[in-house]
Amino acid sequence: MSESLNIAVIPGDGIGPEVIAEAVKVLKKATESTDVQLVLTDYKLGAEHWLETGETLPEETLAALRTHDAILFGAVGAAPGDTLIPSGLIERELLLKLRFSLDHFVNLRPSKLYPGVPSPLAEPGEIDFIVVREGTEGPYVGNGGVLRAGTPHEIATEVSINTAHGVERVVRDAFRRANERTRKHVTLVHKHNVLVYAGHLWRRTVEAVAQEFPNVTHDYLHVDAATIFMTTNPSRFDVIVTDNLFGDILTDQAGAITGGIGLAASGNINMDRTAPSMFEPVHGSAPDIAGQQKADPTAAILSAALLLDHVGLSEAARRVEEAVESDIASRDEMTDPRTTAEIGDAILAALA
Amino acid sequence: MSESLNIAVIPGDGIGPEVIAEAVKVLKKATESTDVQLVLTDYKLGAEHWLETGETLPEETLAALRTHDAILFGAVGAAPGDTLIPSGLIERELLLKLRFSLDHFVNLRPSKLYPGVPSPLAEPGEIDFIVVREGTEGPYVGNGGVLRAGTPHEIATEVSINTAHGVERVVRDAFRRANERTRKHVTLVHKHNVLVYAGHLWRRTVEAVAQEFPNVTHDYLHVDAATIFMTTNPSRFDVIVTDNLFGDILTDQAGAITGGIGLAASGNINMDRTAPSMFEPVHGSAPDIAGQQKADPTAAILSAALLLDHVGLSEAARRVEEAVESDIASRDEMTDPRTTAEIGDAILAALA
Ligand SMILES: CC(C)[C@H](C(=O)O)[C@@H](O)C(=O)O
Ligand SMILES: CC(C)[C@H](C(=O)O)[C@@H](O)C(=O)O
Repeated sequence: MSESLNIAVIPGDGIGPEVIAEAVKVLKKATESTDVQLVLTDYKLGAEHWLETGETLPEETLAALRTHDAILFGAVGAAPGDTLIPSGLIERELLLKLRFSLDHFVNLRPSKLYPGVPSPLAEPGEIDFIVVREGTEGPYVGNGGVLRAGTPHEIATEVSINTAHGVERVVRDAFRRANERTRKHVTLVHKHNVLVYAGHLWRRTVEAVAQEFPNVTHDYLHVDAATIFMTTNPSRFDVIVTDNLFGDILTDQAGAITGGIGLAASGNINMDRTAPSMFEPVHGSAPDIAGQQKADPTAAILSAALLLDHVGLSEAARRVEEAVESDIASRDEMTDPRTTAEIGDAILAALA
Repeated sequence: MSESLNIAVIPGDGIGPEVIAEAVKVLKKATESTDVQLVLTDYKLGAEHWLETGETLPEETLAALRTHDAILFGAVGAAPGDTLIPSGLIERELLLKLRFSLDHFVNLRPSKLYPGVPSPLAEPGEIDFIVVREGTEGPYVGNGGVLRAGTPHEIATEVSINTAHGVERVVRDAFRRANERTRKHVTLVHKHNVLVYAGHLWRRTVEAVAQEFPNVTHDYLHVDAATIFMTTNPSRFDVIVTDNLFGDILTDQAGAITGGIGLAASGNINMDRTAPSMFEPVHGSAPDIAGQQKADPTAAILSAALLLDHVGLSEAARRVEEAVESDIASRDEMTDPRTTAEIGDAILAALA
């Protein structure tokens, strides 16, 4: 990393700009005491931007984004019921295009029940796992098509593509992360009894990579069983490795059982560092509460902490996490009446 | 329906025979006071049977099963860690083959929080929805393949196939069921922002079919958001209609929030009645507790109630449900120390 830390910021739509404003404050504060010089560059992208310009992610913008050390991403997406923006266009042509173009093969999503957060399902400290979700293939590749559209004989297909290259690198990443954790346990989640071809590739890969990590144990769960354990016994999980679609589903469920997706952070990480990684809250743009200072910026702030960790500022990352943890511990059990900025300021104060 | 009611019984593996024994007792009792003559025919199929004979589902057996009015199915599947049975073989070549061959396009899975069942997430009566899961296409079709297997260049694909015919009939079934319920609301669950081709077929079909049901309202949720609401607000659901894979995942989660899959019943229904429908508990064969009288037969018994309803004995079905409901209400909150047979007998007594 150079002396200056060049971060691209994509606030996006809806509550994106509000929560990113707080994450930026925290990033600035957290890097003050380090010897890196934080340089932030804003990129206007998202549904609003598309409405104004017709652009989703132009090649020049993608090229410019590549020059940064990392990307901080808010949220994008049209309001439900919007009829101007073709459904899913922004998600696919911007968010997924970034993940695929920048080879974000590790979609890292930690789940932790912080002290002070009420969860109906567990005691604080009992939930502490990470999901390593594959980010560049599987059912997300956009392969498929339609035959005889709009007729009674229509056939629509979706093709999930899984490669040894893609599966192996993410499985190895999961074992590496497990190896550095206390419990050192990897759970592969798939549905190999039905999705035989992809499922067997994942299973064989886990068995092979496990040989490299004699201290890490592993087991397997079908995705349907995993959603049961997520409800009845979430503390059984340490590191979950899974495909793009199952990871999407499980991490939203994981967010829900650990205090809501207002707290769930994520990193879209290129572990080979051939392109910048991107950090974003798991939540979406929530147009219904946008512009009202109602959104919790904690997920965005924790995503900034993941960013700091990724660029080598792990001490600063740890301090941000601790500030968040202490803020969460002091929250009112039932409702948090503070505005987005007030929560950001409180975390900032705890950081000082 | 003829005077005699010809039911094929497939107890299967693990706890299957134990729970089916109780469901059979209840079926016998419940039909005693009707004018149908219950005729039960046992079919030995499953993992054990495969180990003995090498047969999964021979054509003659399938032909014989077709002659029945309905099928009562326990559970099948090898013990985890079993290395003799190729993984997923029994599930695909027996269970899924039955669902596909007998055109079970409506996989009906009711979720209800009965009074007396502790759920961390809701008050009794608050959860009462049905999932209408498509049962004959989607990612379950077994299409796909492997190229360069076992090499660093392996590519494994899975193809989800969705047809206008298949989607329309299950969507119409969901609206019909909603139309007969109090809240009359259908929620389509999919992931159309990523799975564009299949997603749009599902959405367009829901919009079209909704025109036929002016009294039924409908909305849409991405599958990831659906798992959140399943945790935070399950009472928002009335009728969920979804594809084969999403339905698999959501119904296990639904089981977990309504007292465990020991209570979750299901019907694999051919609504055109061109072949017998099949009724089975959502749970699997649970080899770890098999033969110990530890399994709860309630899901199997409630599946038998769905069977009675399907063959036109709705009064008998209602009585079985009421007997189950009264047994559940009298259970100990924490643990139910009764054996499989004791629970069956208690429900039988409540039925009398
Ligand atoms: C917006 C959508 C494309 C995205 C995904 O499915 O990955 C989101 O749900 C997420 O989890 O980041
Ligand atoms: C055993 C398996 C093939 C089956 C499925 O995936 O449908 C089961 O999970 C179910 O839900 O009935």
